[in-house]
Amino acid sequence: MTARIDFNCDMGESFGAYKMGQDEEIIKYITSANIACGFHAGDPNWMRRTVKLAEERGVAIGAHSSYPDLAGFGRRNMSVSPCEAKNDTIYQIGALAAFTSAKKLQHVKPHGAMYNMAVKDESLARAICEAILEVDPDIVLIALAGSQWVDIARDMGLRVAREAFADRALNADGTLVPRSKPGSVIEDVGEVAQRSVKMVTEGKVTAITGEEIDLSADTLCLHSDTPNSIQLASFIRSALEAEGVEIVPLGQIVRG
Amino acid sequence: MTARIDFNCDMGESFGAYKMGQDEEIIKYITSANIACGFHAGDPNWMRRTVKLAEERGVAIGAHSSYPDLAGFGRRNMSVSPCEAKNDTIYQIGALAAFTSAKKLQHVKPHGAMYNMAVKDESLARAICEAILEVDPDIVLIALAGSQWVDIARDMGLRVAREAFADRALNADGTLVPRSKPGSVIEDVGEVAQRSVKMVTEGKVTAITGEEIDLSADTLCLHSDTPNSIQLASFIRSALEAEGVEIVPLGQIVRG
Amino acid sequence: MTARIDFNCDMGESFGAYKMGQDEEIIKYITSANIACGFHAGDPNWMRRTVKLAEERGVAIGAHSSYPDLAGFGRRNMSVSPCEAKNDTIYQIGALAAFTSAKKLQHVKPHGAMYNMAVKDESLARAICEAILEVDPDIVLIALAGSQWVDIARDMGLRVAREAFADRALNADGTLVPRSKPGSVIEDVGEVAQRSVKMVTEGKVTAITGEEIDLSADTLCLHSDTPNSIQLASFIRSALEAEGVEIVPLGQIVRG
Amino acid sequence: MTARIDFNCDMGESFGAYKMGQDEEIIKYITSANIACGFHAGDPNWMRRTVKLAEERGVAIGAHSSYPDLAGFGRRNMSVSPCEAKNDTIYQIGALAAFTSAKKLQHVKPHGAMYNMAVKDESLARAICEAILEVDPDIVLIALAGSQWVDIARDMGLRVAREAFADRALNADGTLVPRSKPGSVIEDVGEVAQRSVKMVTEGKVTAITGEEIDLSADTLCLHSDTPNSIQLASFIRSALEAEGVEIVPLGQIVRG
Repeated sequence: MTARIDFNCDMGESFGAYKMGQDEEIIKYITSANIACGFHAGDPNWMRRTVKLAEERGVAIGAHSSYPDLAGFGRRNMSVSPCEAKNDTIYQIGALAAFTSAKKLQHVKPHGAMYNMAVKDESLARAICEAILEVDPDIVLIALAGSQWVDIARDMGLRVAREAFADRALNADGTLVPRSKPGSVIEDVGEVAQRSVKMVTEGKVTAITGEEIDLSADTLCLHSDTPNSIQLASFIRSALEAEGVEIVPLGQIVRG
Repeated sequence: MTARIDFNCDMGESFGAYKMGQDEEIIKYITSANIACGFHAGDPNWMRRTVKLAEERGVAIGAHSSYPDLAGFGRRNMSVSPCEAKNDTIYQIGALAAFTSAKKLQHVKPHGAMYNMAVKDESLARAICEAILEVDPDIVLIALAGSQWVDIARDMGLRVAREAFADRALNADGTLVPRSKPGSVIEDVGEVAQRSVKMVTEGKVTAITGEEIDLSADTLCLHSDTPNSIQLASFIRSALEAEGVEIVPLGQIVRG
Repeated sequence: MTARIDFNCDMGESFGAYKMGQDEEIIKYITSANIACGFHAGDPNWMRRTVKLAEERGVAIGAHSSYPDLAGFGRRNMSVSPCEAKNDTIYQIGALAAFTSAKKLQHVKPHGAMYNMAVKDESLARAICEAILEVDPDIVLIALAGSQWVDIARDMGLRVAREAFADRALNADGTLVPRSKPGSVIEDVGEVAQRSVKMVTEGKVTAITGEEIDLSADTLCLHSDTPNSIQLASFIRSALEAEGVEIVPLGQIVRG
Repeated sequence: MTARIDFNCDMGESFGAYKMGQDEEIIKYITSANIACGFHAGDPNWMRRTVKLAEERGVAIGAHSSYPDLAGFGRRNMSVSPCEAKNDTIYQIGALAAFTSAKKLQHVKPHGAMYNMAVKDESLARAICEAILEVDPDIVLIALAGSQWVDIARDMGLRVAREAFADRALNADGTLVPRSKPGSVIEDVGEVAQRSVKMVTEGKVTAITGEEIDLSADTLCLHSDTPNSIQLASFIRSALEAEGVEIVPLGQIVRG
């Protein structure tokens, strides 16, 4: 069977007069777009524009849902209750879906602090899953590969895409090395590409401590907000295609 | 044929810790609920609660969409472009629909300043209609009975419910007497009920200048935020039922 | 020397069309008003109105500063950095002071989650103190009696008013019994008054475990948002005055 | 007497993670900074940073106050009442002043739609003036040179700096040629510089229709958000200095 992987990227993070990201460029290299829904970034006008951009390119669309914190770009943790997180997620899914031609999303990927908390906090993880089940059980959740969140979501009956970060170092237990530690971000483009290929074709990655560990992923997270992000995306894509890997939207990878 | 009318009321206008309206009471007397979507009032938690309340009572659900002005409760006009108004409307429709069991709304009724402007401003009126057509052409628009907005919407292929205000005096040309003028609001409950009956059964109403004018309406707007609003709703409903009028959701009145 | 105490109360927590609290009533019984500054509640119009109300009654004015979380009424903790908390506090102090006749505040009392976190988190506590020192070192900080925050603030050179909650049970170590525990809130008006008198005249209070512990306070926190809050305020005030205690603004109690 | 002029520029219009403008560059060429106060742009963190930048450079500080419309960048007109506009202005002045070392502003310049409306609408113009008088009557108002707003403000006892736009064409009656008309913006740098010199040294400018008209200005508005804005600022400054014109903060130009 051919190895397949999805490329996802956060998009539509402009707001009003404020422009962010290089959406028009990165869209050429990805298969799934996580579109901001107005809670940490984005607004109805940018949502429409970004949805159209993705649809024109045949890129699948998902909600990049967040805590309600525009001033903090959704990067600050907030002690919202599971019930509030669930309702905030339902709201954002619905708002974004209304802009799509299909009136339907492929996936949901929580943003920033909400994503990081859901990895650790079971009640928040469940709340996000409940939101998806309530709106549309066909929607795929993007969750951190190797985290308990993946198991929680599957137990609840969700389709889950396991996400890996090709440019982030991992501990031997599969968790991300915190950004505050040296070596946490892999800068060398060749190494990032090599790691991506190994992850996708063998389901393995080398931990920061040297061990080879298992890591199966359905989707790789790309960025559009760093100076070399476009080149990196292009390079990784070429490296994978050279190995015969197909880059397809995650909805085609994750089983129903 | 039996005369039929819908009773609509603005609901879900609480926000966070702030409570507004008597939703649990007024819901007993109405057939269509206009639920705030977070732009002038409401938030995801109140939207969920209000949708559940309406569904339990069998009351049909619509979006009470607005300009983005929480501080001004959507009562201040804003020079948003037609394109912005369209996108704001799409966003709000989608966000609310996601909370309903059917994932579908019966209607859209713009709120406050946006409603008043749409009566006068053709480009805004069109923008709101386009938003509805884009999201779901089955959705019925509530627009002021006798206004050009009704014609614009019908020409665009929308289903329209013509709305009347039983407690508001009308000029001879069918327009509302401005609140700033004496006699603009009819305080006498009996008179309001009598006017409602005449409007529904005969399609006629007496203007402030004494003439009897034509006014066909599909839905009457009730309020839940005045001291006697519950009694008024109950009284009008009884008066209409005594005349054999059926009170049904507007989706059952307006032709497809 | 005559025993003296200040009565403080949160005020101006209405927002736009949303009314909250019984400011016009409770103002008659208090000496210091904590006025919301638009971050968890309040807006420029309500700030003006509330400042005027306090000035007419000779009640001293302070900022009830908060995390930026209108949707959560400032009750949800947010991981804002100390630097952000400092700047948010400076902003709110300045905004409120501009509405006063003196262009000067008596005090600052952080609200809700920010207050609770500052009791526990030294870096947040320091950030709030730095904000006050930067804007106006004459401003008095209201901080929880018996907490490390009081010591931190004094070490930094701030004037501090130690705050007690007459209707809240205390543990033997002086900390508040969490609201989730039985007996945390004292409902009996007579007992609340008695505890207030003892606290003010003797600097002692009985812990939930029965021990008599030391608790010196400069200000008592009253509420205006519970059904019997006005009677309670009136009752406690009378009880204290009957014992010869003077109720004066905290600026007259706390040493410079 | 030496001719003198102030250079003002909008600054601090970044918001949270969103960067806007080239503040660090343009600051070198101006004498007065209009700093956003969180209503159309800016936030407490950017306000602090921008205030420090201006103070380090010896640039005078003023509030760039606005309607509350972050989503529309303050460019959309809103039907706020004069009373609301007054309170919004007081709030923003106070918030910004709190970040300055002097706890005092040099000036206030309303932004975007509020500025444009104040030129036309006397009640709004008055409301803004009242706000300044209430907070600090020493504050100078920046208003459009030649507009009735200048007269209104002076009649109310305010100090007023008359503002000219060196790169905008004028009608024979001194009003700005609307941006929608051809020739409204003067692109040629040399011509802009020449017009600036003539305006400052002779109090004259050539209208789009060819007549030479009177236009006395105390301050020129520069931009920092166009590609060539830094060069333009540098060029105009040099051209004026070559003619012996002193570039000084408007507070030194406008009589008390």
